[in-house]
Amino acid sequence: MSILQILILFSFLLSASHAAVQDFCVADLSAPEGPAGYSCKKVSAVTVNDFVFSGLGVAGNTSNLIKAAVTTAFVNQFPGLNGLGISLARLDLAPGGVIPLHTHPGGSEVLLVLQGTICAGFISSSANTVYLKTLNKGDSMIFPQGLLHFQLNSGKGPALAIVSFSSPSPGLQIVDFALFANNFPSELVEATTFLDDAQVKKLKGVLGGTG
Amino acid sequence: MSILQILILFSFLLSASHAAVQDFCVADLSAPEGPAGYSCKKVSAVTVNDFVFSGLGVAGNTSNLIKAAVTTAFVNQFPGLNGLGISLARLDLAPGGVIPLHTHPGGSEVLLVLQGTICAGFISSSANTVYLKTLNKGDSMIFPQGLLHFQLNSGKGPALAIVSFSSPSPGLQIVDFALFANNFPSELVEATTFLDDAQVKKLKGVLGGTG
Amino acid sequence: MSILQILILFSFLLSASHAAVQDFCVADLSAPEGPAGYSCKKVSAVTVNDFVFSGLGVAGNTSNLIKAAVTTAFVNQFPGLNGLGISLARLDLAPGGVIPLHTHPGGSEVLLVLQGTICAGFISSSANTVYLKTLNKGDSMIFPQGLLHFQLNSGKGPALAIVSFSSPSPGLQIVDFALFANNFPSELVEATTFLDDAQVKKLKGVLGGTG
Amino acid sequence: MSILQILILFSFLLSASHAAVQDFCVADLSAPEGPAGYSCKKVSAVTVNDFVFSGLGVAGNTSNLIKAAVTTAFVNQFPGLNGLGISLARLDLAPGGVIPLHTHPGGSEVLLVLQGTICAGFISSSANTVYLKTLNKGDSMIFPQGLLHFQLNSGKGPALAIVSFSSPSPGLQIVDFALFANNFPSELVEATTFLDDAQVKKLKGVLGGTG
Amino acid sequence: MSILQILILFSFLLSASHAAVQDFCVADLSAPEGPAGYSCKKVSAVTVNDFVFSGLGVAGNTSNLIKAAVTTAFVNQFPGLNGLGISLARLDLAPGGVIPLHTHPGGSEVLLVLQGTICAGFISSSANTVYLKTLNKGDSMIFPQGLLHFQLNSGKGPALAIVSFSSPSPGLQIVDFALFANNFPSELVEATTFLDDAQVKKLKGVLGGTG
Amino acid sequence: MSILQILILFSFLLSASHAAVQDFCVADLSAPEGPAGYSCKKVSAVTVNDFVFSGLGVAGNTSNLIKAAVTTAFVNQFPGLNGLGISLARLDLAPGGVIPLHTHPGGSEVLLVLQGTICAGFISSSANTVYLKTLNKGDSMIFPQGLLHFQLNSGKGPALAIVSFSSPSPGLQIVDFALFANNFPSELVEATTFLDDAQVKKLKGVLGGTG
Repeated sequence: MSILQILILFSFLLSASHAAVQDFCVADLSAPEGPAGYSCKKVSAVTVNDFVFSGLGVAGNTSNLIKAAVTTAFVNQFPGLNGLGISLARLDLAPGGVIPLHTHPGGSEVLLVLQGTICAGFISSSANTVYLKTLNKGDSMIFPQGLLHFQLNSGKGPALAIVSFSSPSPGLQIVDFALFANNFPSELVEATTFLDDAQVKKLKGVLGGTG
Repeated sequence: MSILQILILFSFLLSASHAAVQDFCVADLSAPEGPAGYSCKKVSAVTVNDFVFSGLGVAGNTSNLIKAAVTTAFVNQFPGLNGLGISLARLDLAPGGVIPLHTHPGGSEVLLVLQGTICAGFISSSANTVYLKTLNKGDSMIFPQGLLHFQLNSGKGPALAIVSFSSPSPGLQIVDFALFANNFPSELVEATTFLDDAQVKKLKGVLGGTG
Repeated sequence: MSILQILILFSFLLSASHAAVQDFCVADLSAPEGPAGYSCKKVSAVTVNDFVFSGLGVAGNTSNLIKAAVTTAFVNQFPGLNGLGISLARLDLAPGGVIPLHTHPGGSEVLLVLQGTICAGFISSSANTVYLKTLNKGDSMIFPQGLLHFQLNSGKGPALAIVSFSSPSPGLQIVDFALFANNFPSELVEATTFLDDAQVKKLKGVLGGTG
Repeated sequence: MSILQILILFSFLLSASHAAVQDFCVADLSAPEGPAGYSCKKVSAVTVNDFVFSGLGVAGNTSNLIKAAVTTAFVNQFPGLNGLGISLARLDLAPGGVIPLHTHPGGSEVLLVLQGTICAGFISSSANTVYLKTLNKGDSMIFPQGLLHFQLNSGKGPALAIVSFSSPSPGLQIVDFALFANNFPSELVEATTFLDDAQVKKLKGVLGGTG
Repeated sequence: MSILQILILFSFLLSASHAAVQDFCVADLSAPEGPAGYSCKKVSAVTVNDFVFSGLGVAGNTSNLIKAAVTTAFVNQFPGLNGLGISLARLDLAPGGVIPLHTHPGGSEVLLVLQGTICAGFISSSANTVYLKTLNKGDSMIFPQGLLHFQLNSGKGPALAIVSFSSPSPGLQIVDFALFANNFPSELVEATTFLDDAQVKKLKGVLGGTG
Repeated sequence: MSILQILILFSFLLSASHAAVQDFCVADLSAPEGPAGYSCKKVSAVTVNDFVFSGLGVAGNTSNLIKAAVTTAFVNQFPGLNGLGISLARLDLAPGGVIPLHTHPGGSEVLLVLQGTICAGFISSSANTVYLKTLNKGDSMIFPQGLLHFQLNSGKGPALAIVSFSSPSPGLQIVDFALFANNFPSELVEATTFLDDAQVKKLKGVLGGTG
């Protein structure tokens, strides 16, 4: 009996035991989702392409008034991330562009500037302290989970940043959209934010809100 | 092109990316359950009523010998709690009522007295220390995960408490029920608790146990 | 040798092994804090009073314009909660009172109305859907982690609610305070929220903000 | 420049960055403990002996009435387990020996019989179902976290088992010790367990309890 | 009305509430798997046999060149472990037998020698420190998650060990199998390990690798 | 009494309660480390610079034989990441450069190519499947936790990539360094890897290993 035969026997013994060890759990987006993420695609159907994503190589369209675009590689776009506790996105900011004040309810963020100059900041909950910094190419900045923050192109040319999150589904809640881009009754918006009625109605007009 | 049009474009870009971000995972109680909880109801079918529960507003029926009732708002009664790490219950204790010695294998508890006087306690595992306290309206008390504890109405009138748990499914194991309300063979009960045969059989008789 | 002697021997054997089993970890607020919470008080110094808190029995002072008060039983007020994944608070809302739009970055919330009528709501991140409900005594409502939400007394008398969180340190970030009660430069507030300069300056004036 | 020199440069670059990567966190039992475990011993002071423990090789003394001994390799005896989510223990059961009804509040258990015959069981919380099995050499059995369970030598000779836990500090709460081996007032024991006064006082006498 | 009737009423109230409390989640290996493990078998179909496994009582076949066998009790062999954070395996090592250098990507390991003498070791990532020890019957040793380690029979007779893991699916990646037992192109193996072409091709020949 | 006075009262009430809410936990690298990470720097000493890191903007020195450099932004270099479940690194690969076969025991990785062409791959543990891909600028690829993987510049010019990890301390174990750059006895290396003695000694010579 050769080494080959013998080791193969050993291998069979092991592989019989390990047929479904969970190295990864590529999301089957059509199957039920649970609190820990999506159901796993069968390993036999998984290929290397489940672990590769090309969407972050394409610049977002910043031909809009905020002059900005967010392109996400969250689990819904990149199913291989399911269960792995991480995701990415790219921010394109034309001159004057801004990612308005927002939170990620489900994860912390680290931003890395690849091009241009970005003024970024977050506000702590404990003391409402504002942590502000102007970031240049090569600088990275942390935005802890759930805290209000923003990014703004403060340079003259376009800016580009890559952001990483500590969750495959960090979420994104933009304050303006939460207040003014839905049917949140103006009366309640005003009562819970102290904004003036005219201000609320103006921004509801801009963002398509009703009520 | 208006601000509205432009921001809406931006909004579309985002919402396309975020169609299934997991802000919550309302339990679909009819779908498979996994170690982290139930499968999620489709977001399109979720309404505010999935996040609202009225069962804790109704007093439990204490017309029984232990003069007590437990009304739970665990994930099985309140599916919106699925995956959120929290649940509630109400305790109604008529005069002389008691929640017998029990544990919650899956979560820690905090009790808040809303009415009356409750004598409560838990026993540590490390040194079998008894932590006992008489609680009045407005007092809260912690019962760490998995430790034996009890609540007893030590006042003259009825008592009412709200309890919160650090899990949507904390479980509830009452020692008397585990020992005497099933088919646990008396011989084994006696051998593993040192209780006398007469005592075991008496309580099995009371609680409907066999064997 | 008696049963007593023998079992005590057994007990000694066990207790020698278990001297420091971690049933709980009452916070030593003066010792270093780590990502999982505070250092533990020595078990020998722990008493039942570390597990009891009376602060939720006292009504908050609502003699202010927002006619509301939040009284927290977070780990900093109730050190016994350290590491247990739960905390509480009480909301007092005089007629017309409101807890302004806010998030808890570190935990989900369940509210239970004990008195009065509360209009509450939260906004999802995925679709900016508003989940609104008028709650009466005995009703409970869930606010998932990190999402913007509010509570408003919509009845004629005072309202009282108990809220539970899935963390001993859920945090509290009120949008108005984050924007207008600090030195967040008005120019940046405006650029990242689209609010008008006059609106920003008015609310900064009210809330004591500078810049 | 040699391969050696060049790779060493590369190595230096990496090791400078990685001086404190946390492969393990051997407990410094004299330093503060937090909710996630003990502080780590400095890596420079760690030796292989921190990862080796010989205490499970020594039979426990079963010359007592319960004819049993538990020898634990929890984090307090085996500091290398700190933070690793696992621990061990050995059970020695002389003929007739028993590990009385108990729970582990902090972890699940798997038992493997190395010698003899053990009757073991646990009771579920949901339906008070008793899961009972007689186990022989080579059999393993699961006891889920926090549930009441026991092990009893049901053979003629001595029995030996190794148990593993899903926590470095699973805890151990023996019902009899929690009820009768401390100063838990008899009146409260009786009110919360429905045991007769004579039974309670008898077992308190045996186990050294007072009150 | 008897105590029985009354307590049974109380029992009904509770059991209605608790029908599906999750004490355990026995894997349904045919149902979808998620990041936290398999879907749960229905509680009504669960029996004690779901918690019992006899496979570790059978010696592995070591009649092979490495003179070793690994018999696993991971969730795939022992579905009751699903979600419980623990699993087991047995190692049989004939004289001269070896478990080649490998990692468990998903969990930490503790080994307990039941028979013979085993030389075991692991290498830290931070400083490439080798932690080596010769272990005799009764000795246990820790191998932290993800670190390269091995076990080798360094005695004259057969050796037997039981290993426990901090995960129901710890995984097993043997370096030699990862490099030489698949279609990993030799050119890439050589470029990423600095091994000589002849060495790579020799071991590919032995282990059945191609490319 | 003005709105200002009244809201400030409300603010005081809240800030008194929230003095230490844990939005973040910047590492105090000189204080004790625990299983969940480093102790937190006092919030009063934290500035925005604790959340900003510039080290990823500097190209690593690839003037070495492997023609590659890894520059890490793990918690030890970027203390603000402590407890946040995320970290970054940059890979510089000169033409022909390679990051040799390695694992990250503590976290999953996502790589994004910023410049050049990289051939990357990982091997699964379950079936020793090789997942290989040639990546161009803008492509991202996942390497699940603990699995062997590599990156190799397969283009003609230099390559640059940013990698993100799901842990602030993912660790890095390079197989060659673990085997050949320390005092791991050659005899044991050979016995546990099946490599030839000459091969082992050759690489020990190159990498400075002894024994």
